[in-house]
Amino acid sequence: MVTITLLSDFGLTDPYVAEMKGVILSADPDLTIVDVSHGIDRHNIAMGSFILETALPYFPRGSIHVAVVDPGVGTKRLPLVVVCKLGVLVGPDNGLLVRVAQKLGFKAGYQIDSQRFKGEKISATFHGRDLFARTAAKLADGLRPDTFGAEVKELVRLDIPSVHVSDEGMTCTVLHVDSFGNVILNLGEGEFLTLGLHEGRSLVLNTILGQLSAPIFSTYSEIPSDQLGVILGSQGYVEIAMRERSAAAMLGLKPLDRIEIRF
Amino acid sequence: MVTITLLSDFGLTDPYVAEMKGVILSADPDLTIVDVSHGIDRHNIAMGSFILETALPYFPRGSIHVAVVDPGVGTKRLPLVVVCKLGVLVGPDNGLLVRVAQKLGFKAGYQIDSQRFKGEKISATFHGRDLFARTAAKLADGLRPDTFGAEVKELVRLDIPSVHVSDEGMTCTVLHVDSFGNVILNLGEGEFLTLGLHEGRSLVLNTILGQLSAPIFSTYSEIPSDQLGVILGSQGYVEIAMRERSAAAMLGLKPLDRIEIRF
Amino acid sequence: MVTITLLSDFGLTDPYVAEMKGVILSADPDLTIVDVSHGIDRHNIAMGSFILETALPYFPRGSIHVAVVDPGVGTKRLPLVVVCKLGVLVGPDNGLLVRVAQKLGFKAGYQIDSQRFKGEKISATFHGRDLFARTAAKLADGLRPDTFGAEVKELVRLDIPSVHVSDEGMTCTVLHVDSFGNVILNLGEGEFLTLGLHEGRSLVLNTILGQLSAPIFSTYSEIPSDQLGVILGSQGYVEIAMRERSAAAMLGLKPLDRIEIRF
Repeated sequence: MVTITLLSDFGLTDPYVAEMKGVILSADPDLTIVDVSHGIDRHNIAMGSFILETALPYFPRGSIHVAVVDPGVGTKRLPLVVVCKLGVLVGPDNGLLVRVAQKLGFKAGYQIDSQRFKGEKISATFHGRDLFARTAAKLADGLRPDTFGAEVKELVRLDIPSVHVSDEGMTCTVLHVDSFGNVILNLGEGEFLTLGLHEGRSLVLNTILGQLSAPIFSTYSEIPSDQLGVILGSQGYVEIAMRERSAAAMLGLKPLDRIEIRF
Repeated sequence: MVTITLLSDFGLTDPYVAEMKGVILSADPDLTIVDVSHGIDRHNIAMGSFILETALPYFPRGSIHVAVVDPGVGTKRLPLVVVCKLGVLVGPDNGLLVRVAQKLGFKAGYQIDSQRFKGEKISATFHGRDLFARTAAKLADGLRPDTFGAEVKELVRLDIPSVHVSDEGMTCTVLHVDSFGNVILNLGEGEFLTLGLHEGRSLVLNTILGQLSAPIFSTYSEIPSDQLGVILGSQGYVEIAMRERSAAAMLGLKPLDRIEIRF
Repeated sequence: MVTITLLSDFGLTDPYVAEMKGVILSADPDLTIVDVSHGIDRHNIAMGSFILETALPYFPRGSIHVAVVDPGVGTKRLPLVVVCKLGVLVGPDNGLLVRVAQKLGFKAGYQIDSQRFKGEKISATFHGRDLFARTAAKLADGLRPDTFGAEVKELVRLDIPSVHVSDEGMTCTVLHVDSFGNVILNLGEGEFLTLGLHEGRSLVLNTILGQLSAPIFSTYSEIPSDQLGVILGSQGYVEIAMRERSAAAMLGLKPLDRIEIRF
C-alpha cells in the first residue's frame, strides 16, 4: 500500500492536519499516512524545504509527499504535482519543493488545475485540505500526474547562498537549528571532504563571542563540556554543536545567518 | 478497515495517549488510529468541542471517534456512546460531544455501563484508556452501540451564545483562536451570506484599540500589511485575520470573548 | 501485522522521527508504527524510562519497541535488542530499557553488532535511524534476536531510590510530573495497600510551604479547590494532585526530588 507523508506549518493543535487526513482516508481508508513535521515555523519556506530534503529520501520509493507552507494560498502561486524518480511531491510552487525535488530526482512538474475537482467545494484559504490532500488521494488511486494540468517547466527557486571558500577559510549559511540547538550549515559532506577536513583538525569560528576554536569530532559526546565542536552530521551537512547544550543559543545563531569559519 | 480517531487534552509527552492506542491495538492490531488533536487546553470543553465539530465531518462515514476532555472523570457524569448518521462518538457527557453530534446527524445516545467490562480493571481517573478506548475497540469489532447501556435521551448542552444581530451591527462570540492567531467567530457561512456580506464590503470592529475598519477579503494574502481583514474561512465560520501576523494578539481576543461588529 | 512503537527525545519538529519511520516503512510499508512519546526532555533517561514502563505494557504481545534517549551515541555504550515475554525492546544500554524490561518479563539481551549492517552506511550520531530502526524492521521481518550479536548478561541499571518507610512515615522519590502537574511518586500500588493506606485517610507532606495535609481520594474532582490530595493513580503509582491545578508548581517538585510523607 502506498505511503502518503504530510508536512505543514499548521501545528497539531488545530483541526487542519486532521482534516487533511480525513479527506485522504475518505478516499481510501487503507492508505498509510505519516507525519513528517507540522512544526515548521509559520510561513517559513526555507525551514520546510530543509525538513523535506533531509527526511523524504528515507521513505519508500513511490511515496506521495504533501507539503503545505503556503503564505500565498488562494493567489496566483501555482498548486503543483512534481514527479521525481523516488516519489511524487504535492504542494505550492513557492520554493518549498525545489530542493527536495532535486534530491529525489526531478522528472516533471504539473500545475493542478482546480477544474479537475469540479463539483467539489474548494476554499480559497485551505488548499492543503481541498486541493493537495485530494490530489494525493487521487494519485494514490492511480491517476496519472500529467492529467492534473499543464506542465510547468521550472519550479520557483529557493534562494540559499552557497558556501564561499577562500584560502583562509569559508563563509557558510545556517540551514537549520535543530531542537538540540545543533547548528546545521550549508556545507555538505562532499565539500567537507574535498576541503581536506577530518576528525582531529580544528577550525576557528568568528562569533559574537569573538574567535572561538572548534575541533572536528565524530560524535557529540566527544566534545569537551562547554566547548564547541564541528561534526559531519547525520543529515549530510556539517554541524556546529556542543555536548548536551545548545550551540545555537551560545552563539546567537538562527537559520539563514552567515558565519565565517577559518581553517 | 474502520478508522478510530482520538482527541484529548493529554498532550503527547505523557504515556496517556500511547496507552489508549495500545489498548485499541491489543484488541485488533489492524485498526487505523488517527490523532485529531491532543493539544486541547487542559479541561477546556469548548475548545475540544470546536476541534471536534470542524474536523470530524471530514472522516470516513462509519468512523469511531473517541474524545476525552474530562475534568469530571470518576464522578457521576455519564460515559457515552453517541450514534450519528456519519459516525459514532465515544466520550464523557459533559458538553464535549453535543455540537459535533448535531453536525454528524444525531440518532441516539447510550450510557456505557461499566458492568460491560466485568473482569477488566477500570481506574477511577483514566476512563480514556479503561472505558472509552475499550468501547471503541468493541464497536470496531461489531458490538452494537445499544448493548453498552441504557439510552440517554438528551446530551449535556454546551452553552455558546448565538450571534445577536441588529440594524447597525451584530455581537459575535470567539469560538477559537488558531495557531496562526486567526480569530474564528460563531458567525457561520449561512448567516454571513444572509446578512448580505461579501468581498469588497467593509465592517467596523469595536476593539480595545478603538473602532477599526476590517474589509472583507477572500484570502489572507490579500489583506494589506498590518491591517485587519474579515474572511469567510475554511472551517465554515467567519474569521478576523491579519496577513502573516496574529489578529488575536493585536486585538487581545481569546475564546468565548464577545466582539461588536458594525455594518 | 506486528506493531512497532517509537520513543525518543527528538521532538516532532525536526526530521529525525520521520527518518526513522521512513527507514522502517522502506523495509515493509505495511508495518504499523505508533509514537509512544517524542517529548522526553533532552537526554533525560529517567523520564524516558518512566514513559516506557507505564505505556508499553498496554501494547499487543509481540510488539517491537524502539527507544532512543541516547546522549552516548557513537561511544562504547552498547546498542541492544532485549527480548521479553511480552515484546522486544531496541535501544541503547544506558539504563533506559532496564525497568521496562522487568515489567515486560526480561528473557535475554543481545548486543547489536554493526557488522550485521555491512554495506549500509551507519552514522556516528544517529543510531536511532541507522541501527535501531533498521534492527526493528529486521525483527519484524522475522530475524531472530540472537543473530544480532553476543548475549549481554546484565543491562545497565537505572538508579532510582526505593521508598524508605519508618513508623512515622516514608520518604518517596518523584518519578514523573505529568502535563497536568500531577506528581507521580515511586510508591507503587502494592506498597500503598500493604501500608494500609486507603481513601478517607489523610497524609501529611513536608513541603517548601511547610507541613500540608493531603487526604486520600479516588478521583481528581473530589479534591477540594486549592487543596492537595493523594490518589492511587492510573499508572500504578501514588500521585500528589490538585483539582484543575498543578500540584508540582504549587510544591516546586520535579522528577527525582525526594519528599517526606508522614502517616
